Amino acid sequence: MNGNSFGHLFQVTTFGESHGEAMGVTVSGCPAGIELSEEDIQADLDRRKPGQSMISTSRGEPDDVSIKSGVQDGYTTGTPIGMIIQNKDARSGKYEPFITAPRPSHGDFTYSAKFGTRNWGGGGRSSARETVNWVAAGAIAKKLLAQEGVELKAHVNQIGDVEAPELSFEQIKAHSEENDVRCAHPETAVEMQELIEQYQEEGDSIGGSIYFEARGVPRGLGAPRFDSVESRLGQAMMSVPATTAFEFGLGKDAREYTGYERNDHWEFNDDGDPVPAENDHGGLQGGITSGEPIYGEVTLHAPTSIPKSQQTVDWETGEEKEEKVIGRHDPVLPPRGVPVVEAMLALTLVDFMLLGGRINPDRVDDRPGEYDTEYHPSRNDN
Amino acid sequence: MNGNSFGHLFQVTTFGESHGEAMGVTVSGCPAGIELSEEDIQADLDRRKPGQSMISTSRGEPDDVSIKSGVQDGYTTGTPIGMIIQNKDARSGKYEPFITAPRPSHGDFTYSAKFGTRNWGGGGRSSARETVNWVAAGAIAKKLLAQEGVELKAHVNQIGDVEAPELSFEQIKAHSEENDVRCAHPETAVEMQELIEQYQEEGDSIGGSIYFEARGVPRGLGAPRFDSVESRLGQAMMSVPATTAFEFGLGKDAREYTGYERNDHWEFNDDGDPVPAENDHGGLQGGITSGEPIYGEVTLHAPTSIPKSQQTVDWETGEEKEEKVIGRHDPVLPPRGVPVVEAMLALTLVDFMLLGGRINPDRVDDRPGEYDTEYHPSRNDN
Amino acid sequence: MNGNSFGHLFQVTTFGESHGEAMGVTVSGCPAGIELSEEDIQADLDRRKPGQSMISTSRGEPDDVSIKSGVQDGYTTGTPIGMIIQNKDARSGKYEPFITAPRPSHGDFTYSAKFGTRNWGGGGRSSARETVNWVAAGAIAKKLLAQEGVELKAHVNQIGDVEAPELSFEQIKAHSEENDVRCAHPETAVEMQELIEQYQEEGDSIGGSIYFEARGVPRGLGAPRFDSVESRLGQAMMSVPATTAFEFGLGKDAREYTGYERNDHWEFNDDGDPVPAENDHGGLQGGITSGEPIYGEVTLHAPTSIPKSQQTVDWETGEEKEEKVIGRHDPVLPPRGVPVVEAMLALTLVDFMLLGGRINPDRVDDRPGEYDTEYHPSRNDN
Amino acid sequence: MNGNSFGHLFQVTTFGESHGEAMGVTVSGCPAGIELSEEDIQADLDRRKPGQSMISTSRGEPDDVSIKSGVQDGYTTGTPIGMIIQNKDARSGKYEPFITAPRPSHGDFTYSAKFGTRNWGGGGRSSARETVNWVAAGAIAKKLLAQEGVELKAHVNQIGDVEAPELSFEQIKAHSEENDVRCAHPETAVEMQELIEQYQEEGDSIGGSIYFEARGVPRGLGAPRFDSVESRLGQAMMSVPATTAFEFGLGKDAREYTGYERNDHWEFNDDGDPVPAENDHGGLQGGITSGEPIYGEVTLHAPTSIPKSQQTVDWETGEEKEEKVIGRHDPVLPPRGVPVVEAMLALTLVDFMLLGGRINPDRVDDRPGEYDTEYHPSRNDN
Repeated sequence: MNGNSFGHLFQVTTFGESHGEAMGVTVSGCPAGIELSEEDIQADLDRRKPGQSMISTSRGEPDDVSIKSGVQDGYTTGTPIGMIIQNKDARSGKYEPFITAPRPSHGDFTYSAKFGTRNWGGGGRSSARETVNWVAAGAIAKKLLAQEGVELKAHVNQIGDVEAPELSFEQIKAHSEENDVRCAHPETAVEMQELIEQYQEEGDSIGGSIYFEARGVPRGLGAPRFDSVESRLGQAMMSVPATTAFEFGLGKDAREYTGYERNDHWEFNDDGDPVPAENDHGGLQGGITSGEPIYGEVTLHAPTSIPKSQQTVDWETGEEKEEKVIGRHDPVLPPRGVPVVEAMLALTLVDFMLLGGRINPDRVDDRPGEYDTEYHPSRNDN
Repeated sequence: MNGNSFGHLFQVTTFGESHGEAMGVTVSGCPAGIELSEEDIQADLDRRKPGQSMISTSRGEPDDVSIKSGVQDGYTTGTPIGMIIQNKDARSGKYEPFITAPRPSHGDFTYSAKFGTRNWGGGGRSSARETVNWVAAGAIAKKLLAQEGVELKAHVNQIGDVEAPELSFEQIKAHSEENDVRCAHPETAVEMQELIEQYQEEGDSIGGSIYFEARGVPRGLGAPRFDSVESRLGQAMMSVPATTAFEFGLGKDAREYTGYERNDHWEFNDDGDPVPAENDHGGLQGGITSGEPIYGEVTLHAPTSIPKSQQTVDWETGEEKEEKVIGRHDPVLPPRGVPVVEAMLALTLVDFMLLGGRINPDRVDDRPGEYDTEYHPSRNDN
Repeated sequence: MNGNSFGHLFQVTTFGESHGEAMGVTVSGCPAGIELSEEDIQADLDRRKPGQSMISTSRGEPDDVSIKSGVQDGYTTGTPIGMIIQNKDARSGKYEPFITAPRPSHGDFTYSAKFGTRNWGGGGRSSARETVNWVAAGAIAKKLLAQEGVELKAHVNQIGDVEAPELSFEQIKAHSEENDVRCAHPETAVEMQELIEQYQEEGDSIGGSIYFEARGVPRGLGAPRFDSVESRLGQAMMSVPATTAFEFGLGKDAREYTGYERNDHWEFNDDGDPVPAENDHGGLQGGITSGEPIYGEVTLHAPTSIPKSQQTVDWETGEEKEEKVIGRHDPVLPPRGVPVVEAMLALTLVDFMLLGGRINPDRVDDRPGEYDTEYHPSRNDN
Repeated sequence: MNGNSFGHLFQVTTFGESHGEAMGVTVSGCPAGIELSEEDIQADLDRRKPGQSMISTSRGEPDDVSIKSGVQDGYTTGTPIGMIIQNKDARSGKYEPFITAPRPSHGDFTYSAKFGTRNWGGGGRSSARETVNWVAAGAIAKKLLAQEGVELKAHVNQIGDVEAPELSFEQIKAHSEENDVRCAHPETAVEMQELIEQYQEEGDSIGGSIYFEARGVPRGLGAPRFDSVESRLGQAMMSVPATTAFEFGLGKDAREYTGYERNDHWEFNDDGDPVPAENDHGGLQGGITSGEPIYGEVTLHAPTSIPKSQQTVDWETGEEKEEKVIGRHDPVLPPRGVPVVEAMLALTLVDFMLLGGRINPDRVDDRPGEYDTEYHPSRNDN
């Protein structure tokens, strides 16, 4: 409710500011019995970390995660998993001109209006650095989902006006990590890279979007109405810094489709099981999963911190002035946003798997219903 | 968490199915001291109710609300407001062909997969009839917001490929209720109406979108990250039946803007107060209100229940068959969706007003901080 | 959070005031497939209702429950169950002397201090009439628990200084409903009845306590720490009007036991399964169920509304005055409190059964884990 | 819901196991502008820490807290406060006999039944070591409460059958920290100490209880029904490890009082303000504060880990056996429990202060209602 927790049964709570001592995340509600190491988490953190390419900020953070609790002998214990990531390369000096002068369209002014104080170093809590926590938590959610046969992946499908063609899930999985832009269509990726570099040279930045897809989500998952899958995905994705639009299925284009065009007719599959003939509904009908792939798109506006000179005001001196943001910033967000969107997708889905009884909330080695009168000997016995 | 409640301090909990006996909503957390009658609520219910025009379903529901608790002598008491709306014109007979055969792209199959039962009359809980509860609760939220100087309004800005031009808030307020489509641009409304009637005649339906705007929301409201204003608006709006996209500010277009173009520079207003020069940020920076108008857009796909014959399967007989949905249904959703979108906007904002301490959670006649050692004589004394 | 909801997965939300039009309760999260009728609920309501004996208030409420949603053809649908109970015999007139003069130790003054208004008729929302909602919801929880082999029962074990001897669960089940006091020990019940009548004649009232017990709760249920079974039972039971103490296991007496005396040693049962030799721990170890019976006690203070003259103040006239409460009130609370305590016990346990994956949150006819790829034909097919 | 978070607006989330690497707590919802340093927190941690006397465990933990976020230049920023306390003196070896043999009445077996794994070192998450997190968070709550004029204090009022006389709040504040037992009555403290040492010598342990009191809580605070002050205090206190009873006001004794005896009559104070003549109601009427002191009592059973030989079973070998718990343990819990009970009291009350609008949820330097159109210059400007 005060913005630092996400999820109901699989609940993530975070702390940390851009230039604070450390980032931290507590994952509460992860079942016992999942094999988990820091390496499992590190892989995704490395995909998100700064300095990974010429089109990402040059801040030098190794983003090494340290698990402080909830894991014993390589397996989760069912108790909360506390994780810490140190901030090692914070350089607040370059933010000094902005202490009393808010950067245009950043959270500087609004955070100050809310809290009555200026946590100016690197944007404090409003910085996208926070998403390192989400990616760490999301990596655990992904592991749990994978054990249940749920796969998910995202890639960058548009930067500025450069748009990737529609790709299959297999293509996205195969190619999205092959280039710095994280666009799974190699030719488009080259164009995107050029466009980004052009804006970067001008001291400007550019917007873009991320396509996401999840496969293997069982049908009948989700809750009606306010906790429909799209409601919770909407909350999750709109939490991603700089997001201005969330769509699933046909998304915004649905406004131009007739009912007959968009409706996905029913047929029997080879097992005599009813399945929709197409998937214009994006895997969700009445807010509940149909068993078809869940897919959608997230739009991220251009980074607001740009080297180009912009007008602001100094509320101490009372002067309007021109100022350049000379910290280290990304010229575009979607490439590093891909693991963040995947994390939020994973966190949303794993929570629904638990809420729908598809994963035992206590432990993963048994299915619910089999253990009512059994105690469980220690995994350590072996 | 199980989908029937929305909000944290101003919490709405609903019940009811399309063909059940009654719809019901409990508003918990409404402060005491607000003048409230059934008439206040009825006005919005009448804007949502079926049968209001030729382009809405012909189901004949008066949708008279009855307040059962929480109001005494015309004022709220601070205790939960229970409201009931009877279902009077349910005709389940026409749904019989679909008892064992799910309608294409409706929630029939997914609800059945989840709950293991078929609540087939009118779609049961998956029906948009549920939104009568939201509109009733939203009317109370609107009243409370109005007392704090917050105004909000929505209108239909696109049906199929017919799009309204950009309008001012004043234009929207003045004209959106003047026609059956609820589009505030009269010429466009005529075109929309024609388009809807054309699809209606074909036994088909069509999608569209709703633009919403709120003014007077104080700055510094909202919580960081997972409970940002856009996160909660995203959840709220994606809960609206048939929604496939949520946008705020530049929305999806933001992908094509550079940082320099989209950034809203700061200047001082006449009071020497910092204000953004434009409002491409849609009233939200870092997830927190800037004091500028909050605006955005919601896309609703075409109604799935259409008279045109569609293919489905009968899971009892094992046959694939063609079937027409011959219940009473809307050919388009946005016209009746306008008060629903306004309700969800109001419910989201009033909760943030309470969470941010802008409204006293206990009563509205005092400001917080003034009454620590005071008891309050009865309003009834007067 | 604002006091009108209880539970997480099995969530109860209530409305209603003593002299309002109706009481209402929404049960959200009850799985589909439970056979349920108004008669199932009425039985417990009749145990709670006023006017049932000479030692209860003479207010004449039939307390007939009406189910408005969530049940179809005699089975729950998985969607929220809305229930209404009309208030038919409210007589506010006798409360007029107290409009501006708070009754001693009742919620009159504190509610007024909080809400800034006086909902004086019968105490408004602070009245124990609210518990009619809890009992209605609890009856559903009991049904669900019974299907899983969980049985629970309460009885009155002390009134004033008259204390019942320790009884077995079988004795409590057999005899607690045999007398007006609801004490399962017939001889003690007679003494209690005499004591109550004595205070009643004096225009006074008397306190007492209720013992509760639940059997068949599977082991390994509950969450660590802030959501331990005793934490949630503590919240539940302290919500019962007039409660001033909650105990489980040895309760307050535990302070005088040594570790060696209180510790329950482990042994193997005939199945080679570890079981504690005794149950001084009251079925809970480390906040989690051991599989042994859960038992405890709730103390209810004497009713504050008494015919005897008491001093109060009139905040309008500024005078101190003597006043008698001449409404219709109970001379003692535990006899009618027994079904209320059972309801809160049932609501707490059913929520833990759902949270622990022991009951499928969507439907009861299947066990979790068996239906991932199955749709479910309608119960109505049969 | 899964046990690791407490509070609504002032929300505490914890992680850590007895023999894990570190304990950690995130405080989300603490307003900005509170002067806060590690020293503020350390004082209470030192009162709780092991090894502080001959009647506490000899485990050598300095319990130094490290604040990782949420504080800038000595003031809170309004964003989450992350704190870490290292575990430095864990010695798991002594627990090896219990890996497959549960200690009597400890959480060993029930945690294993729930999670299907044995986190055996020091009891893992079930250990009272967790309360170090609560005390750290509680110290912040206390600071915030003190700024609002709320004071609170606890002391040990009974050990075994040795009971302290009734003491004034001033006596409790003055003397409770003067002896190792933390009983504010010096003569009784000596008796208690002797009793504890006697059981310690026998290899046994003993139970006891803690009295708590809070003064200065404004009237009209709390929510009706399920979130009454006593409901939330009940949850909070029953979460304290080893608690078996919670009482407020007259507590369990209330069962023997008549209504006339217990009722607290109203009179006017010198300011013409209505006040209750006594405080048998313990500061709470109808679940809401009356402005009088809130007081109550918590019973803690004897520590279950004792050096005396006890019977258990080995679920691997299938043998029943005698075993001594030779880790380092407390012979009695209340002395170190005093700061824990104070912490839970503070966390409960600060949440109600925020929920009731008595503290601005965003920042403490202003009162709500005064800043609607104001931005706030940085505290760093000074």
